[in-house]
Amino acid sequence: MKQFLDREFLLDTETARTLFHTFAEQQPIFDYHNHLSPRDIALHRTFRDLTELWLEGDHYKWRAMRACGVDEACITGNASPREKFQAWAKVLPKLAGSPLYHWTHLELQRCFGIGEPLNEGSAARIWEQTTDLLHSGGFDAVSLLENMRVHTLCTTDDPADTLEWHKQIAADPSIRFRVCPSFRPDRYLADPAGEASRTLCTRYQTADLDTALIKALDSFCQTGCLVSDHAFVDFSYDRDERLAARMRVLGRAYAARGVVMQLHLGAVRNVSPRLYERLGADAGGDSVGHTTDPSALGAFFADLERADALPRTILYNLNPADNPVLSTMAVNFAPRAQFGAAWWFNDHIRGIEAQLDELMETGALASSVGMLTDSRSFSSFVRHEYYRRILCRRLGRLVEEGLYPDDMQTLGGIVADVSFRNAERFFSAADRPEGAGPAG
Amino acid sequence: MKQFLDREFLLDTETARTLFHTFAEQQPIFDYHNHLSPRDIALHRTFRDLTELWLEGDHYKWRAMRACGVDEACITGNASPREKFQAWAKVLPKLAGSPLYHWTHLELQRCFGIGEPLNEGSAARIWEQTTDLLHSGGFDAVSLLENMRVHTLCTTDDPADTLEWHKQIAADPSIRFRVCPSFRPDRYLADPAGEASRTLCTRYQTADLDTALIKALDSFCQTGCLVSDHAFVDFSYDRDERLAARMRVLGRAYAARGVVMQLHLGAVRNVSPRLYERLGADAGGDSVGHTTDPSALGAFFADLERADALPRTILYNLNPADNPVLSTMAVNFAPRAQFGAAWWFNDHIRGIEAQLDELMETGALASSVGMLTDSRSFSSFVRHEYYRRILCRRLGRLVEEGLYPDDMQTLGGIVADVSFRNAERFFSAADRPEGAGPAG
Amino acid sequence: MKQFLDREFLLDTETARTLFHTFAEQQPIFDYHNHLSPRDIALHRTFRDLTELWLEGDHYKWRAMRACGVDEACITGNASPREKFQAWAKVLPKLAGSPLYHWTHLELQRCFGIGEPLNEGSAARIWEQTTDLLHSGGFDAVSLLENMRVHTLCTTDDPADTLEWHKQIAADPSIRFRVCPSFRPDRYLADPAGEASRTLCTRYQTADLDTALIKALDSFCQTGCLVSDHAFVDFSYDRDERLAARMRVLGRAYAARGVVMQLHLGAVRNVSPRLYERLGADAGGDSVGHTTDPSALGAFFADLERADALPRTILYNLNPADNPVLSTMAVNFAPRAQFGAAWWFNDHIRGIEAQLDELMETGALASSVGMLTDSRSFSSFVRHEYYRRILCRRLGRLVEEGLYPDDMQTLGGIVADVSFRNAERFFSAADRPEGAGPAG
Repeated sequence: MKQFLDREFLLDTETARTLFHTFAEQQPIFDYHNHLSPRDIALHRTFRDLTELWLEGDHYKWRAMRACGVDEACITGNASPREKFQAWAKVLPKLAGSPLYHWTHLELQRCFGIGEPLNEGSAARIWEQTTDLLHSGGFDAVSLLENMRVHTLCTTDDPADTLEWHKQIAADPSIRFRVCPSFRPDRYLADPAGEASRTLCTRYQTADLDTALIKALDSFCQTGCLVSDHAFVDFSYDRDERLAARMRVLGRAYAARGVVMQLHLGAVRNVSPRLYERLGADAGGDSVGHTTDPSALGAFFADLERADALPRTILYNLNPADNPVLSTMAVNFAPRAQFGAAWWFNDHIRGIEAQLDELMETGALASSVGMLTDSRSFSSFVRHEYYRRILCRRLGRLVEEGLYPDDMQTLGGIVADVSFRNAERFFSAADRPEGAGPAG
Repeated sequence: MKQFLDREFLLDTETARTLFHTFAEQQPIFDYHNHLSPRDIALHRTFRDLTELWLEGDHYKWRAMRACGVDEACITGNASPREKFQAWAKVLPKLAGSPLYHWTHLELQRCFGIGEPLNEGSAARIWEQTTDLLHSGGFDAVSLLENMRVHTLCTTDDPADTLEWHKQIAADPSIRFRVCPSFRPDRYLADPAGEASRTLCTRYQTADLDTALIKALDSFCQTGCLVSDHAFVDFSYDRDERLAARMRVLGRAYAARGVVMQLHLGAVRNVSPRLYERLGADAGGDSVGHTTDPSALGAFFADLERADALPRTILYNLNPADNPVLSTMAVNFAPRAQFGAAWWFNDHIRGIEAQLDELMETGALASSVGMLTDSRSFSSFVRHEYYRRILCRRLGRLVEEGLYPDDMQTLGGIVADVSFRNAERFFSAADRPEGAGPAG
Repeated sequence: MKQFLDREFLLDTETARTLFHTFAEQQPIFDYHNHLSPRDIALHRTFRDLTELWLEGDHYKWRAMRACGVDEACITGNASPREKFQAWAKVLPKLAGSPLYHWTHLELQRCFGIGEPLNEGSAARIWEQTTDLLHSGGFDAVSLLENMRVHTLCTTDDPADTLEWHKQIAADPSIRFRVCPSFRPDRYLADPAGEASRTLCTRYQTADLDTALIKALDSFCQTGCLVSDHAFVDFSYDRDERLAARMRVLGRAYAARGVVMQLHLGAVRNVSPRLYERLGADAGGDSVGHTTDPSALGAFFADLERADALPRTILYNLNPADNPVLSTMAVNFAPRAQFGAAWWFNDHIRGIEAQLDELMETGALASSVGMLTDSRSFSSFVRHEYYRRILCRRLGRLVEEGLYPDDMQTLGGIVADVSFRNAERFFSAADRPEGAGPAG
């Protein structure tokens, strides 16, 4: 029996252990998609206690607590921070097999040096230890990220954002990692005549939303933007509709500027009216939605390709039945397009292994840009370690089972590439499609 | 090499063995959904031979025989009971990897104490042994269920049913388990103006089908009804249509009465006209159908929630691609809603493991009401044992692989809850949504 | 640690090893669906080098190279054969976990006796060895197939084909295996008024396409045709439409002649306009498409069954989410219909295991006609060995884990049946539905 979460956590073969410790563990982190607050980074935010760090904004944990029957008062309600932590500690042992169980304990170990499992009995002790540490310095937002060896962060930002916090971060010599804004224009595309769109047009002195968006994108690029982001509940593509035309305009603009396009497909959001009315969006009332229409997706990329305007692209699906659809679609446009890491409800051992298997079988794992946190939490960067361990485990098994030669140099290169180097290359690439023109 | 179907069947780690033998094995059975005949229970039906017990109504076995090329005469035709049994015995060894192979042998062991594998060679011997036993007393419907430690059974009944057999069972002191009717109004919803609907309205002296159905539901509740059941080939929800309005009326009625609502989604039925014409429904001509529209399902629950009329709900899918859709949808409305056990064509090791994994990753296994037989067969209750062994195996592996601490108390509690205690609580709960009013 | 690709490749239990070496290894190959060129067989085509044998037409390899960023010049462009081979050798080690990695090395071992892994370093050596061998005789198309113990091949042919090459092969006493044409009328169904359709009608002196197709089918049957083939991007069935009527006419014609009907469902093709314009179809620009509508598929089979005109049928899906849909649909019409082997993007260890599991759980593995290559390549027949090893591995694990008795005779019979004997029986069967009339 393996010890719980020891040094060889998830590493079940000698090959896996060598791969992880030699090629993965020390790699820096290029987190090309997350929802961290740039304000919190710029201000070197500190945290009062684990409830503030862990429970104030994490709808993953809220969902697990609701599913275990915890009263909403102890989740998002009026209970005290200590009571909320106690409720979480009581629920946690029930989450056997959940990534939340592993993330929580990895965060305790890596951020706070605490190896004891969290449960009802240990909650008081762990609360005190961590509260002391959080107050002791060295646990502010910037320190937490630096301790995780963060190299680059791409936050997710509204095109109307002035990016003041990003500029302040760039000017702060004590922050040694890079923080780039990402361009997420969803709400303008969803409501082109709405107030937000009108305001953006006014800001850029134009009546045309496309023009305003591209000017905003140029402003983002001047502040280091590497990547954009679009979410679709149910992707459709009718060439002659306004949304399709706008997506082509943006795609061409991304391609011309070397900005990567991310498509997040198939989440249904804010399904519970009670949660939405009480807490707004991102309240834990979202779930796995529709599979993606392969013909619609293919038609969009084909139109961009015909116009020499296909940007580098990453495709993410929330419905795991889309894995083979998106993986094989990406290869139709490889190496410009690729199939992205297991997203949100798929971010667990089985989901990560399914994405790795899919890449190995129908794509090319060796070219993958690997993991991202997609997280709001400053302690969540242990998810990169979790992913890398699963990656090494998967490759280790190939060798163990005689499905690949015992060639550690090649496998180690793949591990290092997927852990960090591919992302650095892919997001920094200057290559643009023929005809896409020089950057804006 | 493990012995076939020995004491440690499916229990591949020490943790699994301890969990099963200490926490699961002795739990009673709360079978909250099956198709047993209440008449057979009330009359303490006896069985002539294994063909009567096993083959007369079991379309699972019929399908396997057809897939192996057995002549229909030996399946549902004019062959003698002995010939049909011989045909089944000849096919069975070909069903390596099928749950039918395991169920058959578990039933031989648990009901009849026969450990020998059934095949062409052993068929005559096993036929004689079991026929003798079936004629010896102690093998009637009630005894078979009691020997399985059945605590509660929920049969599936038509709203027009007078529930006479249920009343007779309740009045029979020799039947020590509880038998509750379940409310399944599908045919009224499918044909609101049809003969069955008109008859039901006449019975309850109303012109309004909704009123008639709710009066029937009240009558069911007076006879101990805990749960209702609805099947949809392809769930759709248009708020303004008659069916949607009726589902809201029923949902509210279930919520007000504390009756659990079951939704069975995505079976296509009676596909083969030849089988349907010859044998009617449930002839083995059904198959896995459409995936479920997450937006439609979410809209239905949202409307119920807005009206404070969401009953406790269990969601079942026949298409396994719906696992993450239903699991994450249920959590949007947790703990009121939950994702149900692997249904019908998914009721096998891989399907059960996939449902458990889904719950662990995106729901909360610890809150699950666990297994049900969904069966017409009085010997099929070994499926609870099968499920519990797989549950213990799954949890045992977590410990073995270092993915969970060696905490038998917590894991044992989860096992006992999922095996029995959660179902007892969930189906007996008096909690109703705010505003749903007192029970009818 | 197992040695890479040794004698016990993929055989991880003693049972698996016994099953493979005793019951599978020596079976001949009945390859009932491939895209080999009958001209190449008739002319005993020889190959200049591995680039000609491996890379000239294999869009699987092209996709993998593109996904790894190889320049198109070294894939389908102007680079020399030696340069293309070098590019492939450089990419190959990156394809850990890909079936291409295993196929390539199985082909090197089985066709050329080369056990060394192919990579950038060994490429020159392996190029020279294989080029020498290819020029030494014994490596022409016919010899490659005979060395693989090919018994029967079904190529894929256009109804307008005069089948001259097939007749030449049949008349060539030095070709000891059987080569049968298969009837693939897709382009006539897609464009019934198009030039190809008009030409076919002219050839058979009729104005009616149905008549022309059936005359062509009769001509195919006279040349040994055993099987037809239809591909659908997104299967739909509207009883009253022309295409549905034509599919019924063809289905009835297949049934009457004992020709098996294959349906390949859910590929989206030629998605990349750049690849299609440059290279035409089969350029590696295809991907996994839609899942199949179970109601539409069921309605088609029901109509054929009602007319006593359902031919023996094999269903293949490209979207793996269709596995349970097609497997359970086939059983509705068993044993006439069956669920086919893992196709194209599913033809890898995980995909093959998923198809075997599906058959064991919801169908009948013992009746399966097993593997086909679906390939254009004369060295690709090692895929039968790959499949048989996975089959034996899967069954071996059942015994190892106590899920099936240690009954080698029964399991060996299943292995031999699935490896060869079932295909021989299924494709040679004279049985026809009642009423379908005598063969044309």
